[in-house]
Amino acid sequence: MKILILGAGGMIGRKLTAALLRKGDLSGQAIQSMTLADVVKTDAPASAIPLHTVAADLSAPGVAAELIAERPDVVFHLAAIVSGEAEADFEKGYRINLDGTRELFEAVRRVHGADGYRPRVVFTSSVAVFGQPLPPVVPETQVLAPLSSYGTQKAIGELLLADYSRRGFMDGIGIRLPTIVIRPGQPNKAASGFFSGILREPLAGLPATLPVGDDVRHWFASPRRAVEFVLRAAEVDTSGLGVRRTLDMPGLSATVGEAIEALRRAAGDEAVALIRREPDPAVQRIIESWPEAFDPQRARALGFEADASFDEIIRRHLEDEAPATTVRS
Amino acid sequence: MKILILGAGGMIGRKLTAALLRKGDLSGQAIQSMTLADVVKTDAPASAIPLHTVAADLSAPGVAAELIAERPDVVFHLAAIVSGEAEADFEKGYRINLDGTRELFEAVRRVHGADGYRPRVVFTSSVAVFGQPLPPVVPETQVLAPLSSYGTQKAIGELLLADYSRRGFMDGIGIRLPTIVIRPGQPNKAASGFFSGILREPLAGLPATLPVGDDVRHWFASPRRAVEFVLRAAEVDTSGLGVRRTLDMPGLSATVGEAIEALRRAAGDEAVALIRREPDPAVQRIIESWPEAFDPQRARALGFEADASFDEIIRRHLEDEAPATTVRS
Repeated sequence: MKILILGAGGMIGRKLTAALLRKGDLSGQAIQSMTLADVVKTDAPASAIPLHTVAADLSAPGVAAELIAERPDVVFHLAAIVSGEAEADFEKGYRINLDGTRELFEAVRRVHGADGYRPRVVFTSSVAVFGQPLPPVVPETQVLAPLSSYGTQKAIGELLLADYSRRGFMDGIGIRLPTIVIRPGQPNKAASGFFSGILREPLAGLPATLPVGDDVRHWFASPRRAVEFVLRAAEVDTSGLGVRRTLDMPGLSATVGEAIEALRRAAGDEAVALIRREPDPAVQRIIESWPEAFDPQRARALGFEADASFDEIIRRHLEDEAPATTVRS
Repeated sequence: MKILILGAGGMIGRKLTAALLRKGDLSGQAIQSMTLADVVKTDAPASAIPLHTVAADLSAPGVAAELIAERPDVVFHLAAIVSGEAEADFEKGYRINLDGTRELFEAVRRVHGADGYRPRVVFTSSVAVFGQPLPPVVPETQVLAPLSSYGTQKAIGELLLADYSRRGFMDGIGIRLPTIVIRPGQPNKAASGFFSGILREPLAGLPATLPVGDDVRHWFASPRRAVEFVLRAAEVDTSGLGVRRTLDMPGLSATVGEAIEALRRAAGDEAVALIRREPDPAVQRIIESWPEAFDPQRARALGFEADASFDEIIRRHLEDEAPATTVRS
């Protein structure tokens, strides 16, 4: 079992690498080697399994072909320019998110044509493929109507994944991840950043800003669940997926107020008092255009499971990222 | 008012050219010149308006840029490899239907970047963007889940059209045409070909084959309506379209049996007797995966109108294509 991770340097990529090294196998087959690719060469963690790290821009000529020439059994395609950057730099977004994805799929198709090679390809997509108007609970048959170039590029990736899989060139599966909370590390400028910030910062004794109302509802998964989703997507039986190869992932539908009450239970009133309310109508408008909840029947039937509560999300964050001493006993 | 028609040599392209020459203006502005482009150079009809015919493969380097350098006010993008060929020749389908469309949109974007140029771009899409399962009446929010490479390429074209329009590079509108009946000319090998054949051939005194049951229901428009749709799309106010720039066109939802009864009213029992029933389970399966009816509220609100009946579709065919003497008085 050979594995290729594209976008290995990102948050999910690093956690996925660690999880694969802990697990040691995939679909019951021992992992023989892993190639960790990202636009900048990442440090490989210490490992008994041979790890190759590669600096690779998928959209550059020949790069995808070189990576696929190794015939990985499973390709995790997590590489993407994020939403804000894809909107700010139109050409870069299309080059990395669309051309890069297509180059990868074409490289797979060419090797398939030569010898029948047909890897599992796990593609992380996003709820950004959906636009407005959205019903309170988004069904699995909701139209793709992205409100951003990033969402457009992910939707196109989903369509290519489906067609290349339908034609038998690869065994693709796409997963639309919920908004990940609590993202570890520094605050970022993503419009969704405050969802993590209002929990992560107070849990570390730091102030945080809340730009939207407490009644804003959204769809969440912990980083640990996100990694479970990606792993499960590599192992799950895809034979029943039909032409819709991309699945809405289960998530926790919760309001900002519910997240704050979970913070209060975990770290007390003093933590909650660190949240400063600074309503920002521009952010509020963006967030209100996002889905509030999904009905991910197909993913649930395949064993994908959501976090049960924000209490669980906070507990996982503290176990995985922060010193245990910040948890109230 | 300068006009560019891509795919001008096809059935819709030729009828659109003729309609524009008759009309003489678009959105109240006199047509100054028209460029008729297709993969093979077509004969230009006699015309008082200057017509340029061009042999152009949009996917070839520089071709789209050269066409757009003329700064057409309206671009009709009808060019496509059809469904069967796109399925048989994977690379050609993606090259013409995806790369060609993207090259066109990129050429527009580059001129936009230079001087703010922002043409109306009318893109003909297809109900082939939809897959299974489909409800009896397909809503406007139905997921894009194509069952063919052609449908995938059209869905991607729709997504690009929406994003390039949202970014302000062009004023795009997509229209999903129903199955066109009665297609003039010779029988073709498209799975949908019999819908035209069982009317066109008997109306001309020739035998025709019906591979599906009389109760098969589908969604139709006459060639004349299709041209009206394309023209209206060039003139309609797009300001209320939002991010969903592609509209389901109105159509006539009717069964094969209803079409045959209209044939009987138009040309009598002897015409109907020319239809030979040869059930073909493979064709029946393909046709059953196609949509039966839509609820095209947005298009109707913008003045797009369907044919009223198969009687009207047959009457229009006879007016436009066949000698009037074959009509029963």
